[in-house]
Amino acid sequence: MLDALSPGEVVLSKAALLIDQTGMIVERAESGTSQFDQLLRHHDTTWHDERSILMPGLVDLHIHAPQWPQLGTALDRPLEQWLKNYTFPLEERYNDIAFARGVYEELVPALLAQGTTTALYFATIHEKSSLELARSCLKYGQRGFVGLVAMDDSILCPETYRYSEPEAAISATRRFIDAVRQLPGNEGGLVQPVITPRFIPACSETLLRGLGDLACETDVRVQTHASESDWEHDYVKDRFRCTDVEALEAFGLLRRHTVLAHAGFTSADDRKRIRKHHAAIAHCPISNAFFAGAILPIRHLLDEGTACGLGTDISGGYSPSILENARQAVVAARMLTSGVNPDLLQQKRGSQGMAIDFTEAFWLATRGGAEALGVPVGQLRPGMMFDALKLDPRVSMLFPSEEDNAEETVQKIICHAGIHSIACVWVNGRIVSGRYN
Amino acid sequence: MLDALSPGEVVLSKAALLIDQTGMIVERAESGTSQFDQLLRHHDTTWHDERSILMPGLVDLHIHAPQWPQLGTALDRPLEQWLKNYTFPLEERYNDIAFARGVYEELVPALLAQGTTTALYFATIHEKSSLELARSCLKYGQRGFVGLVAMDDSILCPETYRYSEPEAAISATRRFIDAVRQLPGNEGGLVQPVITPRFIPACSETLLRGLGDLACETDVRVQTHASESDWEHDYVKDRFRCTDVEALEAFGLLRRHTVLAHAGFTSADDRKRIRKHHAAIAHCPISNAFFAGAILPIRHLLDEGTACGLGTDISGGYSPSILENARQAVVAARMLTSGVNPDLLQQKRGSQGMAIDFTEAFWLATRGGAEALGVPVGQLRPGMMFDALKLDPRVSMLFPSEEDNAEETVQKIICHAGIHSIACVWVNGRIVSGRYN
Repeated sequence: MLDALSPGEVVLSKAALLIDQTGMIVERAESGTSQFDQLLRHHDTTWHDERSILMPGLVDLHIHAPQWPQLGTALDRPLEQWLKNYTFPLEERYNDIAFARGVYEELVPALLAQGTTTALYFATIHEKSSLELARSCLKYGQRGFVGLVAMDDSILCPETYRYSEPEAAISATRRFIDAVRQLPGNEGGLVQPVITPRFIPACSETLLRGLGDLACETDVRVQTHASESDWEHDYVKDRFRCTDVEALEAFGLLRRHTVLAHAGFTSADDRKRIRKHHAAIAHCPISNAFFAGAILPIRHLLDEGTACGLGTDISGGYSPSILENARQAVVAARMLTSGVNPDLLQQKRGSQGMAIDFTEAFWLATRGGAEALGVPVGQLRPGMMFDALKLDPRVSMLFPSEEDNAEETVQKIICHAGIHSIACVWVNGRIVSGRYN
Repeated sequence: MLDALSPGEVVLSKAALLIDQTGMIVERAESGTSQFDQLLRHHDTTWHDERSILMPGLVDLHIHAPQWPQLGTALDRPLEQWLKNYTFPLEERYNDIAFARGVYEELVPALLAQGTTTALYFATIHEKSSLELARSCLKYGQRGFVGLVAMDDSILCPETYRYSEPEAAISATRRFIDAVRQLPGNEGGLVQPVITPRFIPACSETLLRGLGDLACETDVRVQTHASESDWEHDYVKDRFRCTDVEALEAFGLLRRHTVLAHAGFTSADDRKRIRKHHAAIAHCPISNAFFAGAILPIRHLLDEGTACGLGTDISGGYSPSILENARQAVVAARMLTSGVNPDLLQQKRGSQGMAIDFTEAFWLATRGGAEALGVPVGQLRPGMMFDALKLDPRVSMLFPSEEDNAEETVQKIICHAGIHSIACVWVNGRIVSGRYN
């Protein structure tokens, strides 16, 4: 059993978990203790292969569900082209509920198979279609946070794919919140609505303020993009004479568990505000390489204690796997440290001390994402819900040596694990993908 | 059927191949032509699923076979520590032939399953054990280029893991060349020996010159590391008052199909010399991030026409997959273009125009590597040997749309294909991994 206690600290041990009816871990006993023997004596038990590894479920803090059909296309186009010619036209198709249902019914099980037990989704501006995504999460048992996208800017958004009036977007969001909360089968709140202004450039002031007020009134989580690229960062500075984060704060959108995607161009002061409001950042290292024009210095966030986790940013990122993004988070941080351009002198090339290690990437992929969202998952400890993966012991490369310690095991998992090595996936103690044995 | 005609040019078409007894493609006919119908009429045929994709086999231009057991470990250590405490002690264990056989018997089939039909290997300094690697390639049918590692520097190399005298290393290499050529079952020359000075810092002048003479005498290919890191690059400059490439040229080691691993710090003049001698560079983008301190500007190589392909650099790189390295080649080149450090002004951050696209990465992974080594593979065309992969059509993410053109298909393959989507692998027309249907 593998766990991240803190960004730098992972534990590997043989242990037994007691899980109650609701799927909550109520007891954990390490092998060799009397508590362990008692626990086995007094309860029905399921044994797992000695060499298999149980680890917390993966959390995807930023994913555009409707972009699933174009996963791995047009990444070599510049952002505007990518949005205008590919992404907006695709998202517009979700006014067709049947099309939406078809994609979401494929997406959610595919992500569960990748080990993503919790996902924070951008849907589209379409109420009914976005509700289909919430339904899919419920149907397949994924912990889903679903956002109806709000955008009304007539310059940036196509006329056929935006709200014509801010009020329309606000009342649609209000209706969507109620609809998700009232979904049959959602009494336990497995699926939650999220207030989702796409990003400042796509929204009018009225819309941003209105959504801020709605968040305050309903206490619903907020997500958006912030300081992703030079263009976006400068756009907000020109429009509001302040940073993205300052603007979001002013509109009441920077709240507890607000998740800001990318945020590569945030300043130390921006991140201080983020911490002050107990908001968080979704690091999307693969997407950064294609659309951000820089890499989020995740090292700073870990050192400052700014809440953060990982996002696939489908389809700005090509991979649906949080493990592959964790891998890339380590690689990208190394490149930030050493620099990339051999024509520059070594001391001018990189910015030293920005690397992160594999245990930190493991934490980001699991507990980091869970804390960002404020859900009791991401560790296999009493009080947490049992959201977990079982890694297949037969994928030998993961387990070349029985003597591997926790750090070595984590490194091999981050480097090599993927959909093919995930044998079983649980959410709330229920199997949602794969099988026991 | 998918093919890279040139770095920028890929073709996707329904076609039939006629393969002779030796495994050579003797005819290719596009569907819909009379030639196609004739070909089917006059020969035994094997059909492949309409939606499956045949592509050329993958070429790994740089891999340390003995480092397989530590794949994905100690990557967060600095290079010296990684060599001293992990890599040299591991490689030293290959004086135990049984240990070597065990590892190589696992490695070769594992690489074939990853689609690596041709591999250019560093083995160790141990003759008998390194011959076991050649035997494994023959046994499992991989096109293997195997190098007995030569090193004799008493400062850099452990006393227990080096040749005490340059002459000993030279005569061992000479014996190894003969032994590989005379291996029973190697009459067709599927497995070839390679003269392999580890890298200049590990070799005496006598050794380097002796190996250069041996290469000239035997016309055997040469491989080594060159200008990988600031340290190595500067070391050679201090020792010989010239660049790695100039020194290798002086020792007679820069020859037709000499493969230089990494070479990130080579100058335009260095690469001119490389082209002059028809030598090549192995780009190892994952390994670069951990040990090179910079990224090889592969864009320059493609524009100049410097021969190049991809290497996994196991275990300096954590992935045995050339497809994953192709993916990382695109990502790394993007980072080189845009830069990585958000604290720098955009115009000072990157070095514009250094990106490569997915079709170029596909070429590097297949035809580029084949041309670097000078073997008639890497395209599914008459005159080439049939080294190929079949991608499983059931891995739906690869084939979200029947209408994908060649470029879109290539991008999806580079982004998503991996061991789990490779259904069948052929070398010389023979199935070496997976199965037909």
